[in-house]
Amino acid sequence: MTRTADGFQTILDDAREASIVLARATTTHKNAALESIAAALVANTDRIVEANGRDLERGIAKGMPAGLQDRLTLTHDRVQALAAAVRAIIELPDPVGGVVRGGTLANGLQLTQVRVPFGVVGAIYEARPNVTVDLAAICLKSGNAAVLRGGSDAEESNKVLVDVIGGALEAADLPRASVASIDAYGRDGAQRLMNARGYVDVLVPRGSAGLINAVVNDSSVPVIETGAGVVHIFLDETADLDMANDIVHNAKTQRVGVCNAVETLLVHRHAVDRLLPAILQRLHDSGVVIHADEDARATFPAATAATDEDWGREYLSMDIAVRVVADVDAAIAHIRRHSTHHTESIITNDMANAEKFLAEVDSAVVMVNASTRFTDGGEFGFGAEVGISTQKLHARGPMGLPELTSSKWIVRGNGQWRR
Amino acid sequence: MTRTADGFQTILDDAREASIVLARATTTHKNAALESIAAALVANTDRIVEANGRDLERGIAKGMPAGLQDRLTLTHDRVQALAAAVRAIIELPDPVGGVVRGGTLANGLQLTQVRVPFGVVGAIYEARPNVTVDLAAICLKSGNAAVLRGGSDAEESNKVLVDVIGGALEAADLPRASVASIDAYGRDGAQRLMNARGYVDVLVPRGSAGLINAVVNDSSVPVIETGAGVVHIFLDETADLDMANDIVHNAKTQRVGVCNAVETLLVHRHAVDRLLPAILQRLHDSGVVIHADEDARATFPAATAATDEDWGREYLSMDIAVRVVADVDAAIAHIRRHSTHHTESIITNDMANAEKFLAEVDSAVVMVNASTRFTDGGEFGFGAEVGISTQKLHARGPMGLPELTSSKWIVRGNGQWRR
Repeated sequence: MTRTADGFQTILDDAREASIVLARATTTHKNAALESIAAALVANTDRIVEANGRDLERGIAKGMPAGLQDRLTLTHDRVQALAAAVRAIIELPDPVGGVVRGGTLANGLQLTQVRVPFGVVGAIYEARPNVTVDLAAICLKSGNAAVLRGGSDAEESNKVLVDVIGGALEAADLPRASVASIDAYGRDGAQRLMNARGYVDVLVPRGSAGLINAVVNDSSVPVIETGAGVVHIFLDETADLDMANDIVHNAKTQRVGVCNAVETLLVHRHAVDRLLPAILQRLHDSGVVIHADEDARATFPAATAATDEDWGREYLSMDIAVRVVADVDAAIAHIRRHSTHHTESIITNDMANAEKFLAEVDSAVVMVNASTRFTDGGEFGFGAEVGISTQKLHARGPMGLPELTSSKWIVRGNGQWRR
Repeated sequence: MTRTADGFQTILDDAREASIVLARATTTHKNAALESIAAALVANTDRIVEANGRDLERGIAKGMPAGLQDRLTLTHDRVQALAAAVRAIIELPDPVGGVVRGGTLANGLQLTQVRVPFGVVGAIYEARPNVTVDLAAICLKSGNAAVLRGGSDAEESNKVLVDVIGGALEAADLPRASVASIDAYGRDGAQRLMNARGYVDVLVPRGSAGLINAVVNDSSVPVIETGAGVVHIFLDETADLDMANDIVHNAKTQRVGVCNAVETLLVHRHAVDRLLPAILQRLHDSGVVIHADEDARATFPAATAATDEDWGREYLSMDIAVRVVADVDAAIAHIRRHSTHHTESIITNDMANAEKFLAEVDSAVVMVNASTRFTDGGEFGFGAEVGISTQKLHARGPMGLPELTSSKWIVRGNGQWRR
């Protein structure tokens, strides 16, 4: 191991050492540390809010957009909410040590595949100090050490948060190095984290598509990609009007700016006149801007004309693209071309079309007659929100604590050797 | 999608189209195609052996080492064996469609996580035409299209093999593009395959450590790493002499040049005199060169003096490194420093030390009182040999057909929307 003069390698080495302790820590011990962190966050609220204020001031001075300011802000109430989120993780089952499968071979060897922590989890994210606490708690519960790069916008907030968490870990008799920040190393630190193959076991980017793509392309450490959601709903010929109306309205308006909100509505050409007027009117009345193709605009003239840029666009806003298609096959073809493979839903009363859609649409979550907003770790019953994976390796769809573990094979013999 | 003039992108697009057909193919259909491939291999033996002869001739002319020549060679018998290996895959259970987990949420939504193929699997390997057939059959059974880069040394063999497989697929009414070769694009093709994120779902490198490292570092497509094996056995103070002797001899000599053969033997200092003389003598008598530290050489003077380069070295030959350590903790520390996290085994009669070793050694497979040669898909009962993963993401240890699948969530509702 080459140690650099600036201490970066020492952070990685210390994280590895901490991970060995965490891997063996009992659930009771880890839960006590989580309680210690929650209490420390509450006790240090003033200090945290103060540091956050300095980040905010700097952000405002350099013209940070309001949305970003809001995500950056930590108020007294929000710190209490962070502490509550940490306490919620205490209640979740500990994935470590769970038996995945096993058995006894003919030669008497006993095989058990058990869940083990990854070891050291790296994370690169942006301007969201709540993610620092989230990831620290999730990694701790799953027995992983965390090396965090939170971005310069939240640097002061993250520094205090990691310090408070470190103190709480020590108070609970776990290594301070279990949660480390590399913010002090700036952009260079992010690059070195991506190159730290052999020292960091997995890297989780959270943030904009640009950030995620950069990590995916540059990292030699294996990445779990939590990607963007260009989510589609297809209204089939037999869709029930009321059901379709409620689901589309919910999927678009219940919360915008989230990855499981619908972005494109596809409609069977034989259902346009029956379904679209009421559904688009309700969206319109709720303030949604409708970007429709010509066939849809014939039924709903208030819509804006869609351009090719509207297909496959993740608005993350009160906008929706609407397109009329010939049939379920055309809907699937459109989705195949424009989807980010996050979530797609068909609204139908036709069994064959439902099964076809479920089988042929290649997305992390495929639904029939349900709102796409249900693609969520909390809604799926996983408790913690680790993110939603849009890659096919390791984890796909909403991730819970078990997705932050690897496995290992335990083989118990009494002298067996291979013939 | 941008299509390049030289047809490379068309290969990827056609593989994607084929993968859609394969994902929906029934097990019966895929098995019929496997039988068709096996029969075609047998029927085309002469053509295959002839093409292989040209590869061999070229290799010999440019001074290919004998070991490589052997791996490259396809005889009549070896082609029959390839066909038999394809037929063996017919017998394995189809992983596609298997339910991983599921349940019904409080709101009535029915969740099912099912196994689905990755889609398009890329593979980069070297001078082993048998791998072409292996990967084609394994990918087909698991519902994946395969894009293969087999290396210039076996180019003529692979070309004929892919052509024979393609004909057999068509005869079985599956797309020829299900198994494609990009050998015609040379080194550039390998690079483009690594950059084909979004077109290739996962990349499997098979070959030397150099090749695997290059793919891991350069690929933006997610990689399943099948790494090198610097395998350790630790003889604890209480190890039974006969058991230790049989296991060490088996792990070193039953087959060399394989990743699960032992490379380093660690011995508890209090067991040196009792265990080492007989064990090292037997290895020595079998032709193993023993590279021992000073303490071990005191007991077995015929050994060569080990240098620092011997620790962590994957000999892949009739060589073994031997080191005396203070206790189980020192053994674990040595392993942590030098292991490739493939397989390690402790020989002991001490329960506490066995449990400590199993818990603290961070390898894909950890064993007590068994030969490391058992780390193998076949021995584990998986049937096919997809490789042994030394990474922690997605798959760890021996991989079977299920490890060549991803999953997707099916959500069935009757109008649910999120409150």
